[in-house]
Amino acid sequence: MTKDIRLNAFVGNSPVHLSPGLWAHPRNRALEYKDLNYWVELAKVLERGKFDALFVADGIGVYDVFHGSADSSIRSGAQVPKHDPLMAVSAMAHVTKHLGFGITASTSHEIPAVLARRFSSLDHLTKGRIGWNVVTGFTDSSAKALGHDSVLPHDTRYDRADEFLEATYKLWEGSWQEGAVIRDRASGVFADPTKVRRVRHKGEYFQLDTIHLTEPSPQRTPFLFQAGLSKRGRDFAAQHAEAVLLSGPSKATIGPAVRDMRERAVRFGRDPHDIIFFSLATVIVGRTREEANAKLDEYRSYVDPEGALALFSGWTGIDFSQFELGAPLLAETKDNAVHSMIDSFTSADPTRVWTLQEVVEHNGIGGRGPLLVGSPTDIADALQSWGEETGVDGFNLSYAVMPETYIDFVDLVVPELQRRGVYKKDYAPGTLRTKLHGQDALKVSHPGAAFRSFGEIDPAA
Amino acid sequence: MTKDIRLNAFVGNSPVHLSPGLWAHPRNRALEYKDLNYWVELAKVLERGKFDALFVADGIGVYDVFHGSADSSIRSGAQVPKHDPLMAVSAMAHVTKHLGFGITASTSHEIPAVLARRFSSLDHLTKGRIGWNVVTGFTDSSAKALGHDSVLPHDTRYDRADEFLEATYKLWEGSWQEGAVIRDRASGVFADPTKVRRVRHKGEYFQLDTIHLTEPSPQRTPFLFQAGLSKRGRDFAAQHAEAVLLSGPSKATIGPAVRDMRERAVRFGRDPHDIIFFSLATVIVGRTREEANAKLDEYRSYVDPEGALALFSGWTGIDFSQFELGAPLLAETKDNAVHSMIDSFTSADPTRVWTLQEVVEHNGIGGRGPLLVGSPTDIADALQSWGEETGVDGFNLSYAVMPETYIDFVDLVVPELQRRGVYKKDYAPGTLRTKLHGQDALKVSHPGAAFRSFGEIDPAA
Repeated sequence: MTKDIRLNAFVGNSPVHLSPGLWAHPRNRALEYKDLNYWVELAKVLERGKFDALFVADGIGVYDVFHGSADSSIRSGAQVPKHDPLMAVSAMAHVTKHLGFGITASTSHEIPAVLARRFSSLDHLTKGRIGWNVVTGFTDSSAKALGHDSVLPHDTRYDRADEFLEATYKLWEGSWQEGAVIRDRASGVFADPTKVRRVRHKGEYFQLDTIHLTEPSPQRTPFLFQAGLSKRGRDFAAQHAEAVLLSGPSKATIGPAVRDMRERAVRFGRDPHDIIFFSLATVIVGRTREEANAKLDEYRSYVDPEGALALFSGWTGIDFSQFELGAPLLAETKDNAVHSMIDSFTSADPTRVWTLQEVVEHNGIGGRGPLLVGSPTDIADALQSWGEETGVDGFNLSYAVMPETYIDFVDLVVPELQRRGVYKKDYAPGTLRTKLHGQDALKVSHPGAAFRSFGEIDPAA
Repeated sequence: MTKDIRLNAFVGNSPVHLSPGLWAHPRNRALEYKDLNYWVELAKVLERGKFDALFVADGIGVYDVFHGSADSSIRSGAQVPKHDPLMAVSAMAHVTKHLGFGITASTSHEIPAVLARRFSSLDHLTKGRIGWNVVTGFTDSSAKALGHDSVLPHDTRYDRADEFLEATYKLWEGSWQEGAVIRDRASGVFADPTKVRRVRHKGEYFQLDTIHLTEPSPQRTPFLFQAGLSKRGRDFAAQHAEAVLLSGPSKATIGPAVRDMRERAVRFGRDPHDIIFFSLATVIVGRTREEANAKLDEYRSYVDPEGALALFSGWTGIDFSQFELGAPLLAETKDNAVHSMIDSFTSADPTRVWTLQEVVEHNGIGGRGPLLVGSPTDIADALQSWGEETGVDGFNLSYAVMPETYIDFVDLVVPELQRRGVYKKDYAPGTLRTKLHGQDALKVSHPGAAFRSFGEIDPAA
């Protein structure tokens, strides 16, 4: 781990993100997810805690695998409703100076020229603090919302995403040359048309023929997040991602993933540290260990098993309604794929036989990352050892109660990390990419940088 | 005209909207269009002046008819760059309480379920202050940005827009029944799945099969603006629009359009006053008439003919580079379509023979609406007589210098209108639709209201 632990807050624009049922906790403000003040106040808390970014998950599908229906998701509010996370960004940017924004958007329901313009507009408005979490969309329900019968095959989705990125790189990096914008009041010249190139892209999945409609923004290409964990997804991330979000229950699952992806990055001509790894974790901290444990017990009493199973079934594609809540889970099925999926929830202790009830309790707060509970010292120890043993650079912190989980972390854990010299006392100046990778522009080893020269781009007619 | 004159500010997210060259004026802050503070400060000025809405034009094409190239548009900044206008809304909403936002989005480059979710999210964040200006996109350059060769035929675009609206009405009005959202902390029930319906739409242009992903927002369907002026466009607006934006140089062109569209609305079963008409106008006001005239002369010296002709050529499809600047314009062409187009710029004085230079001077500040110049009394007289003689309800006010044009109006004209009792002294409470039409929901005579019953919508599986 580098000196400074990196931190994102990991949320959804929904009454439930990864802690089903907890919206009903009396101190939880999660039901206010649809109001501007909720987002503005969260952004201020995170900036007070020197978080690198607010990271917002998204998707346009509803989880409908559990009992073969969306009813449980709707009843429990489990990522339904799910509002558009880009819409609140400018309000949050207006009340902060340094906080980055990692916003999810899918290459399956966006159009390259339109998405490129949207992110460039936000990169200007945030002064270089916007990041894009590139996803391909994995639920059939999201495909149906677009009028398709089902989602494309997994690898095809990534091929399509590769081409989507190529098209947007051309617009972001190649359309407006450095120095194209003149803004000379004396001559009345806004821009030099000889330095603005029309991008003609004619690929297998996308076509476009246009100049990029925004002038060059502080980062040009938004800071790129990715979270794919399949083999194809890892190659995609190893090529394109500047930060990767991992989730797994134990150091034993995360460490090898980090090493594998750094090796893949090298095979694609990049530096192994061109990618920053954030590992999902949920922190319940008290002034003492006892206080933290009491808090956890109280939170746990709100976990909604129906909502949890709706989420787990949606993520894995396994309809968990086929299993008894109290029976030993692995004994109930001989299906290897199911074993492997369940393992991804429970491998924190591979020798243990879990019941579904125990899986719900274990993952019902904060999802598939570790639940770190204790005093500020306990938490700092745990975060440091996760970093040292897995090679992750930081954490994608999920919440139990909003915004209490982040306020507790900022008030109790951040000062302890700062005392230990493993967390920044102040933000570095500059854009999100400068803060995380030391420069505004994509590194030259990044595939997007290749589109700065105009080799593949015809001059404007 | 009803008692209160209605007012929008009419802008683009660009260094130039309708006053090419004026970005170079020393007091013009138009070059800051890409910064958040520009929008936040504008919103505050407009709310101070009790404007009903900020109206932002948009499109993803570049004007490239003049000289058959985009070079003039790029050089003069004439609606190039053009940033995504939805991105700044939440920041503006956060610093205002009443101002509405009429944001343009095209049915040609959006996807129904995705756009519906985006506007619903904004309707929540703004507490019911969002409006959608429905456009179909008319430039080939916008079609090329989407990978098509050219724009669809005019009437086909409107047929497609009709179906786009039908699909989004189903989501907005039909997917979540009243009372579906429970939010009961005691029982842990967020929503009642029996009151959330899956919308299955299978049309000629669009398909979808999904629940709406946002809970019902204050207005459900965003307040609908439209600006189509063709016969097909007028029918579209007469059916769907709750406010219509007109532009024309004289009362003689606007009055008949208002009457015609109110009659069309009646033919579609609506009340003639279910549509509010805003007419484009640009106001240059001084404390005295002399001061205003001096200001106009100063502004005029900044008009950029190249940028003006790039805009006029783009709007009309006529390449004005074929005409001499100083020669009598109508004498140069026998083409009736060109005559009619030129007439739409110049019919303020139909007996006059215009040179292209004069058209540039006449329309180079604020575009194709009237330029109203004078003392506060002169302006109030002019606005009142426009209202009385044409039947428009208010004005879509373009600017010469940003934000000076609006500050002048708010400081000098608004108090005069208030003194005369023809302008509100304070905002009415409630959503944009409540402020303009007296209720949060679409009126029952509006075609969107038909989708509140679930006749056309299958229950969720």
